[in-house]
Amino acid sequence: MSSNRAFNSHKGTGNKTLLADKGWNLLAEDVGLPAAVLRESALEQNAQWMQRFSQQAGVKLAPHGKTTMSPSLFKQQLDTGAWAISLATIPQVISAYQHGVRRVIMANQLVGKYHCEQLVELLRDPSFEFYCFVDSVDNLRWLGEFFQQHQVTINVLLEIGVPGGRCGWRDLKDVSALVDVITKYSSISLAGLSFYEGVIHGDNAEQKIVEFVSEIKQLCQELVSQKVFDAEQVLITGAGSAWYDVVAKELTTDTSIDFVPVIRPGCYLIHDTGIYQDAQQSVMSRSQLACDIGGDLVSSLTIWAYVHSVPEPGLMIIGFGKRDAAFDAGLPTPELHFRSGDSAPKTVPSHWQSVKIMDQHLMVKTHADDDVKVGDIIVFSTSHPCLTMDKWRFINIADENYVIHQQIETFF
Amino acid sequence: MSSNRAFNSHKGTGNKTLLADKGWNLLAEDVGLPAAVLRESALEQNAQWMQRFSQQAGVKLAPHGKTTMSPSLFKQQLDTGAWAISLATIPQVISAYQHGVRRVIMANQLVGKYHCEQLVELLRDPSFEFYCFVDSVDNLRWLGEFFQQHQVTINVLLEIGVPGGRCGWRDLKDVSALVDVITKYSSISLAGLSFYEGVIHGDNAEQKIVEFVSEIKQLCQELVSQKVFDAEQVLITGAGSAWYDVVAKELTTDTSIDFVPVIRPGCYLIHDTGIYQDAQQSVMSRSQLACDIGGDLVSSLTIWAYVHSVPEPGLMIIGFGKRDAAFDAGLPTPELHFRSGDSAPKTVPSHWQSVKIMDQHLMVKTHADDDVKVGDIIVFSTSHPCLTMDKWRFINIADENYVIHQQIETFF
Repeated sequence: MSSNRAFNSHKGTGNKTLLADKGWNLLAEDVGLPAAVLRESALEQNAQWMQRFSQQAGVKLAPHGKTTMSPSLFKQQLDTGAWAISLATIPQVISAYQHGVRRVIMANQLVGKYHCEQLVELLRDPSFEFYCFVDSVDNLRWLGEFFQQHQVTINVLLEIGVPGGRCGWRDLKDVSALVDVITKYSSISLAGLSFYEGVIHGDNAEQKIVEFVSEIKQLCQELVSQKVFDAEQVLITGAGSAWYDVVAKELTTDTSIDFVPVIRPGCYLIHDTGIYQDAQQSVMSRSQLACDIGGDLVSSLTIWAYVHSVPEPGLMIIGFGKRDAAFDAGLPTPELHFRSGDSAPKTVPSHWQSVKIMDQHLMVKTHADDDVKVGDIIVFSTSHPCLTMDKWRFINIADENYVIHQQIETFF
Repeated sequence: MSSNRAFNSHKGTGNKTLLADKGWNLLAEDVGLPAAVLRESALEQNAQWMQRFSQQAGVKLAPHGKTTMSPSLFKQQLDTGAWAISLATIPQVISAYQHGVRRVIMANQLVGKYHCEQLVELLRDPSFEFYCFVDSVDNLRWLGEFFQQHQVTINVLLEIGVPGGRCGWRDLKDVSALVDVITKYSSISLAGLSFYEGVIHGDNAEQKIVEFVSEIKQLCQELVSQKVFDAEQVLITGAGSAWYDVVAKELTTDTSIDFVPVIRPGCYLIHDTGIYQDAQQSVMSRSQLACDIGGDLVSSLTIWAYVHSVPEPGLMIIGFGKRDAAFDAGLPTPELHFRSGDSAPKTVPSHWQSVKIMDQHLMVKTHADDDVKVGDIIVFSTSHPCLTMDKWRFINIADENYVIHQQIETFF
């Protein structure tokens, strides 16, 4: 096997020569299936849409990069105007740094000797701006000692949480225990406040989120008056992909203090046809600003796969499974059907339903007399995007004619 | 960043120099967490146990390699005596081939031009023995034409299925439609029969499986008498990790015809503390042969992670999530608790329970007064193993002292 073929052993790859020449045509089966395919125009539309939203809402955009872990897509987001990339772990931060990202919010606690040792090397680069979350006295003391020993300063954002939620200091009225530790260590620079409202659920979630963000603003104001922030600009950062409109609005309403509001949606670039489509419909129904931007987010990621078997009338077995697609927020949704020789893929009948997913297979119910054959290609959308993305080392970017001109790498 | 550091940006890796010198000590935090860790002695025990079972049951062992997709582990299985490696897709087959595997059962249909073109190159190597499943006339015709054009012969195993199951020809009484196509193409060599009994469920699953396998043996006998097999040795292959004892017993009982029985369990080497532990307990309660072997399968895979936050009494937030561990067959189970300075990890209290998993976090309920701290290490087992393995590009192999001397690569 040549080294070309070695490259091609990854699932979803195609013939290298063709790619350089005229691209891989998905309909001509130039690519091994299953394959993960991103629609170029949808990526562009989504990147632009969220950037415009952020600009018009008056907030900075720090897209959560953990969704895609693809430096090519980080670059697209930064080129479109994103202020920073948010990430969840130190290996993710290192990957982003190695690919040129120079402003990172690690929307997570920084824990563990090995990762801190790795981070120290990055922080010695004066061009690299880094923030992480802290929510405990124990963690702050440990970080203070560690970075003092290494003579490096680390920027932290106090993470505020809600009862029953995830991380985050629970007492919004009193953060003095944390502030006391921070002021002890010159190696720790308090740069702002942070939160993740995505853990707030229930019928009155919107109202609870508004109140939560409002209280965080009040806390920020108190801390400003106490002069405990070291940074020139104080950040307040929150917002996943479901409530970014509510967070942005509250962060930019009636603020008498000077802080930089930063939102961190992760799933807008890929989007989906499941939980984030539903979430975005809620955004559009709530936010006049979102409606005024024009257009909307669209699902950009599909899985292309073959029909492997039609073992009994009304049942198709498709050649992909849990190894290739998310299944934690609904099963993959069949969208298009193509048979070699057809001029273009057709929209599938609405009664086609994924009923079961296994490691390497998906079962789809059809009507008994539907025209489906082994070797047909079925195109699926999935939900949620983070867990489809992390199943692929290489993801294809296709144009409107289903021709792939670029294959991007992921770093999970 | 040096290239050493580039390597280290993958999650769960450690300092290269230490590994070469005295290994990475998990308790000394030589490795970034979360990390996936395989216990060397458990791998050895499991490999030996299943090989002995197969030998004493009189069947060949073709472990399903899709579980681990790790050539180092394929080698261990083959070195222990496995007859072949089973795989699910052509990219998996190519990876195995590139790492020296020379007998493969692709326990799946072979569909798609691109992958067939890749396979042709492998089949031209006379040292490479390959079998795939077929279950439809359409697929057989396509394969017949394709391999005829390329002047290569492909070995196929007729896959037999059950109503409501996955792939597989449903009519056990009549496979003449398939045989007719096969006899038309000299490019197709019928080498045996195959099935996957893991889709048979219900209270009387065992009896149904016995009958199913028995009928397949009868079908094999008829096909032998019809002289439709081309191969010198006829294979009958079935059995995942849950029913291999039942399948092996039935395949080797009262057989008047000469065939090679092959079982394909995938999860025994890694095993787990969830669905496959339960399945193995059933094996041990059913099979005297399994009991007579001595010892048993043990869970070999753990995830090591830090406590990131103890935001309220009785709740720990752990620094790993859906991005790092299976969650399709129960949430990860906390097993061990270690604090820097302790002499060894302690078994966790039985009331510690994982209650929710998110992309990068796991929530664990404890008692309010349990002694847990940010920075503590918690070790988890998971279920099922396939979906933990595919989250990692590098997996650590540790000895009984939690020292890592080897890191193996996966090829998902």
